[in-house]
Amino acid sequence: MKLDEYYEIYMKKTSTSKKYYEKARKIFPGGINHNIRFFYPYPFFTKEAKANKIIDLDNNTYTDYWMGHWALILGHSPSYLVNSLTKQIRKGTLYGTVNDVSIDLANIIKKLMPNAENIRFSSTGSEATMYAVRLARARTGKKIVGKIIGGWHGFNSSLLESVNYPFEEKEGTGLDINDKYIVSIPFNDLTKSIKILNSVKNDLACIIVEPILAGAGCIPPNEDYLIGLQEFSKKNNIIFILDEIVTGFRLSINGAQKIFKLEPDLFTLGKIAGGGLPIGILCGNKEIMSLANPINKPKNSYCAIGGGTFSTNPLSMISGIHTLKYLKENNNSVYKKIDNLGKYVRKELYKLFSENKINVKITGMHSMFHIHFLNNNIKQIKNATDVALCNKKLLFKYHFSLIALKNIFFLPYKMGAISYTHSKKDIDYLLRSTNYVIDSGIMKE
Amino acid sequence: MKLDEYYEIYMKKTSTSKKYYEKARKIFPGGINHNIRFFYPYPFFTKEAKANKIIDLDNNTYTDYWMGHWALILGHSPSYLVNSLTKQIRKGTLYGTVNDVSIDLANIIKKLMPNAENIRFSSTGSEATMYAVRLARARTGKKIVGKIIGGWHGFNSSLLESVNYPFEEKEGTGLDINDKYIVSIPFNDLTKSIKILNSVKNDLACIIVEPILAGAGCIPPNEDYLIGLQEFSKKNNIIFILDEIVTGFRLSINGAQKIFKLEPDLFTLGKIAGGGLPIGILCGNKEIMSLANPINKPKNSYCAIGGGTFSTNPLSMISGIHTLKYLKENNNSVYKKIDNLGKYVRKELYKLFSENKINVKITGMHSMFHIHFLNNNIKQIKNATDVALCNKKLLFKYHFSLIALKNIFFLPYKMGAISYTHSKKDIDYLLRSTNYVIDSGIMKE
Repeated sequence: MKLDEYYEIYMKKTSTSKKYYEKARKIFPGGINHNIRFFYPYPFFTKEAKANKIIDLDNNTYTDYWMGHWALILGHSPSYLVNSLTKQIRKGTLYGTVNDVSIDLANIIKKLMPNAENIRFSSTGSEATMYAVRLARARTGKKIVGKIIGGWHGFNSSLLESVNYPFEEKEGTGLDINDKYIVSIPFNDLTKSIKILNSVKNDLACIIVEPILAGAGCIPPNEDYLIGLQEFSKKNNIIFILDEIVTGFRLSINGAQKIFKLEPDLFTLGKIAGGGLPIGILCGNKEIMSLANPINKPKNSYCAIGGGTFSTNPLSMISGIHTLKYLKENNNSVYKKIDNLGKYVRKELYKLFSENKINVKITGMHSMFHIHFLNNNIKQIKNATDVALCNKKLLFKYHFSLIALKNIFFLPYKMGAISYTHSKKDIDYLLRSTNYVIDSGIMKE
Repeated sequence: MKLDEYYEIYMKKTSTSKKYYEKARKIFPGGINHNIRFFYPYPFFTKEAKANKIIDLDNNTYTDYWMGHWALILGHSPSYLVNSLTKQIRKGTLYGTVNDVSIDLANIIKKLMPNAENIRFSSTGSEATMYAVRLARARTGKKIVGKIIGGWHGFNSSLLESVNYPFEEKEGTGLDINDKYIVSIPFNDLTKSIKILNSVKNDLACIIVEPILAGAGCIPPNEDYLIGLQEFSKKNNIIFILDEIVTGFRLSINGAQKIFKLEPDLFTLGKIAGGGLPIGILCGNKEIMSLANPINKPKNSYCAIGGGTFSTNPLSMISGIHTLKYLKENNNSVYKKIDNLGKYVRKELYKLFSENKINVKITGMHSMFHIHFLNNNIKQIKNATDVALCNKKLLFKYHFSLIALKNIFFLPYKMGAISYTHSKKDIDYLLRSTNYVIDSGIMKE
């Protein structure tokens, strides 16, 4: 079969979504509200999701490995959360005042991640990383941010640079103001990174890094890379910011910082921490965080960070509390299960493609995994450039075929995440489906 | 009675909140997650809210005029919303994909506000205004933003300037990068505003303005002010952005833009549009909005605006849909009721203070109202500077006394908003309580 035939199959089974995409294009630029959610010829429209399944408007039921931008570690709408949220809705969704549930959630986080000496809640990850950078600038009096080539920290203007290939080109129009305050460094190349950082050291406020490069291709760090950046930061009074929005409560209940033995000055959380409701969290060293304390201070002497109408709204707080409590109480069983499935899927996918003489590298750690189709130029995956220069067409064919033929959903080009609601059966089905896709010949076109 | 005695009364009845504030101070800088939520000696902690009531940890029940940052026009957790949200929770809180409910909400908005030719959802107001500015810069190739002195557009770096008095001082540390691209103009002084804007016209990308200066003191516009800014913008190819995050669906179901006959190039919504769940919305002219369309374009040719994990999450969409539908179906009764109550409270408060020889100005429109205690220097309220130079101590005493003695909650210093769940009885109780506060002598100290 050729790709065109797969499009036919997809369009036939998603005809309602096709109509809705036409409606969406009339009201939303490009028909979408988040650029990565589009894929060719049009994305299916979801009407419902439960556990590890997502159902579209034509009643196609997909096994979901995208899992709400990887946030839903316990699956879509787990029953314990349905109950607690249902109760909270009757008690209010937005107090607009301080509340006790925000203290509860903060203290659960602090206990699990001791580097969270102090915490500030916002409503999205994009806000949390923006405030992290602002606080770092406030602390150091310096302006430049060091970020990873391909690193993704949300849509805020402070960090929207060198996200997508070609990395040296702007991430879009209207962003001219901030870009000269960002320097980009190659993930997993400590020598080169330090050299670049050293060259701007005098005005370097902070380094921000995801412990695993997530959006850029699910790339784990080399043994010394993160520690090396942290050491450089501490030695030079630069704020070391770890962006754990994806990895926090994903790699372990104590985050990537425990696994990689890191002590970031500041770090950010989101996604899992809100149990599927909007949240962004800035955590860190008490002394640095105290610069955000406005009480009894003239306005130009503290760092004004959000905040916002929806910060600490009780629905997000309750959702976070019950999610983290569940993870804590079932720590061993949850992480053991999803990590083992991760290990299994990485190993078996590699085996399967290799047996079929398709040259791949499977990256990932614990419950995250991604597949890269190598080519003559790219024989290893150590950073975002390697990922960008891999055979992306083959990756799209693979992901799209799974959607079209087998009702398995990875957001095309993006890594997969395993939730507690996935089973070995699901993984075996993914493996069988992969085999089917390979056999169909599409990967050889 | 003296203010100290009021503090005693407050602390006695909110002793549990006092303990929780101590807990909060240990984990949150300043004990808060939004700077304006603090008030002296400590804010009460909310445990529940229903209709127009908010209940703290000591079971004090307050009549709420803060109403979730003025978002809850139909009251806390109205039953129609409880039902629809309860249903949606079982169907998923975060699909992470495109969905039909986002189209439904967008089309409701478009019908009510024809200037919303195209729409992009984000998750907070701070994000929406940040993206509005970015899009304006993308469209014009220019950098400077004109904003109102005292105008509040959220915590994003692009607009955090001249928010609080003294307006010429920075809004905090860590903000050095953006401030040189912001010029500030005095609300309601068209001549002076145009003069300032003219002086930077060559690099002026946009003007952003709240139709009613909300956070800065609930100040309606002079007859020609907004139209004047709009005309200047259109004449000079500058993007005119109306920030309707507070006023949208508050002043009327068609927003302030209908009332003031405005046709903004871009405008932002939030608060009421999400029915109490997190939302931010950028709306506007189709051609300008189309610059955000990324489909089949190289990344440096379009304007990358969020987006974010939680954008178009079905809980916020459903909450917005049912809120706007309710408002539409009950358009006459809702707005007639709350607007009449607004008129009544403004008139009667003025009468009450005047009879007691306390020199006040009551500002507001429709269901929004605010009280300003005039002094020898300030005899009228036309902009944020007037508000800042009024007798703020008296305003605090008034608001705090209502909290301490009469269980009426205005966020101290901030305007009040009337919801559909407020009644004439509530307003009469506010008036009687005001009388009581005046009689207690606190306002004369």
